[in-house]
Amino acid sequence: MEIETMLRAYMPESEGMQAELAEAMRYSVFTGGKRIRPRLMLLAWEMYGGQGENPAPFMAAMEMLHTYSLVHDDLPALDGDTVRRGRETTWRKYGECMGILAGDGLLHHAFETAAACLAHAEYPERAGRALHVLAQKSGVSGMLGGQAFDTAHSGDALTADELLGLYEKKTAALISASLMIGAILAGADEGDVTILEQAGIRVGIAFQIRDDMIDSAEAPETPGSDARNRKTTYVSLFGMQAAEEAALRYSEEAIALLRGLSADSAPLQQMIRRMAVRRQ
Amino acid sequence: MEIETMLRAYMPESEGMQAELAEAMRYSVFTGGKRIRPRLMLLAWEMYGGQGENPAPFMAAMEMLHTYSLVHDDLPALDGDTVRRGRETTWRKYGECMGILAGDGLLHHAFETAAACLAHAEYPERAGRALHVLAQKSGVSGMLGGQAFDTAHSGDALTADELLGLYEKKTAALISASLMIGAILAGADEGDVTILEQAGIRVGIAFQIRDDMIDSAEAPETPGSDARNRKTTYVSLFGMQAAEEAALRYSEEAIALLRGLSADSAPLQQMIRRMAVRRQ
Repeated sequence: MEIETMLRAYMPESEGMQAELAEAMRYSVFTGGKRIRPRLMLLAWEMYGGQGENPAPFMAAMEMLHTYSLVHDDLPALDGDTVRRGRETTWRKYGECMGILAGDGLLHHAFETAAACLAHAEYPERAGRALHVLAQKSGVSGMLGGQAFDTAHSGDALTADELLGLYEKKTAALISASLMIGAILAGADEGDVTILEQAGIRVGIAFQIRDDMIDSAEAPETPGSDARNRKTTYVSLFGMQAAEEAALRYSEEAIALLRGLSADSAPLQQMIRRMAVRRQ
Repeated sequence: MEIETMLRAYMPESEGMQAELAEAMRYSVFTGGKRIRPRLMLLAWEMYGGQGENPAPFMAAMEMLHTYSLVHDDLPALDGDTVRRGRETTWRKYGECMGILAGDGLLHHAFETAAACLAHAEYPERAGRALHVLAQKSGVSGMLGGQAFDTAHSGDALTADELLGLYEKKTAALISASLMIGAILAGADEGDVTILEQAGIRVGIAFQIRDDMIDSAEAPETPGSDARNRKTTYVSLFGMQAAEEAALRYSEEAIALLRGLSADSAPLQQMIRRMAVRRQ
């Protein structure tokens, strides 16, 4: 499945009253992102035979949710980033107002895309459960709750427990949900979905620690926004060496959990190992 | 059904990492609002016998979506309003950052509340359809699309057609969805749902014209945000007298449509008539 093509098909058209909004939403989504979350979802779905409810709308919805979180995170009232992946951030290009609305649009459209499945789902019970997981893991007790804690305590010194709790919500919740939803749509049993949830949390924490390392390794004359905003990160608390070890340790813990699944997780394990050593 | 109590039960708890976020969300929702949309949904549901899928989670979700739109609309990058219903707006009280995130939180939580029904719905097909209507009517081709057009063209002179198209999306989409969802959950047939959609559009346009009149009638020394932001409104285009007549005409058109329903719409007609002559 070509993820870029698929994603394009689920984005709203730039026409009529929604023209400017849809254009800003497309600009935000098509940035050469790694599409980690839909790829993890697809691997989990394929692990259970690649049958059942079509994961494409949920893969698209997941990437829209992830992108919305970046678009709002970049706003002047939050991190105030002007460049992402070598291009102007959405608010910088279209203005602050459209930056807010384009993020809102991606959040709306994620749920609209997932909800559209319910009408003609082959497995409506699975699609409904997947939608509920998507909402729970992205919302107030998941990603957004982490984001809100992060900004409410920006500049505060966090303890290691607080920091890991934050990573579990802000970053790991959507990664965990991606694995869960892929498995749910393919018909995996409840026990496997719970193992994938736990493994996904560890993959997500490792991913965030690796992000901290990449941010911290940027040239000192162009400090990343973590440094500008004096954020506590795994690297600022424990240093680069310990961060490297922790990223590998969390990834190995995830892989150990995957060995308890009823399905063959070799391709997923490979991806998790590659994610743990990525340099960008 | 006591709407305030019901709504309170569906709001997230102010605890743990989400404490500040949930507090700002609650502040935004409990403002003595008229709860027009959940009341319309309940009336539509009762019109079809008040049986079937419980409308309470959808009533709460609808009010959360409406409130999110106000919270983001009030932000400095949009209308820049500092007072709503005699209290500080959310961003003014909690800061711009939390204003953005509280709006996001209400949008997330609306869909989480509606999605939670799917897991244990008595009528999952109805709940799924209601969720899809909620997403469509609030999203890029509905309320948000209208909001984005409005801000992208703020200060521009709009034609009457553009203005009515804008009102249909920005205001009428959620009002129309409220009537549709109440009927869907109670098991109304497709024909009645379509009539309610059309009637709801007219109720919503009448509602917005009445809002313009109330905004315009405010004392000149404290102009409403429409005047400050030089927005085209029905009143600025056609004057107060024509606006009064239009609000009544759209309401009567809605009521004429309701007479074609298979159910007794008398209580709903009464509410629409009261809405058309409201002074606040």
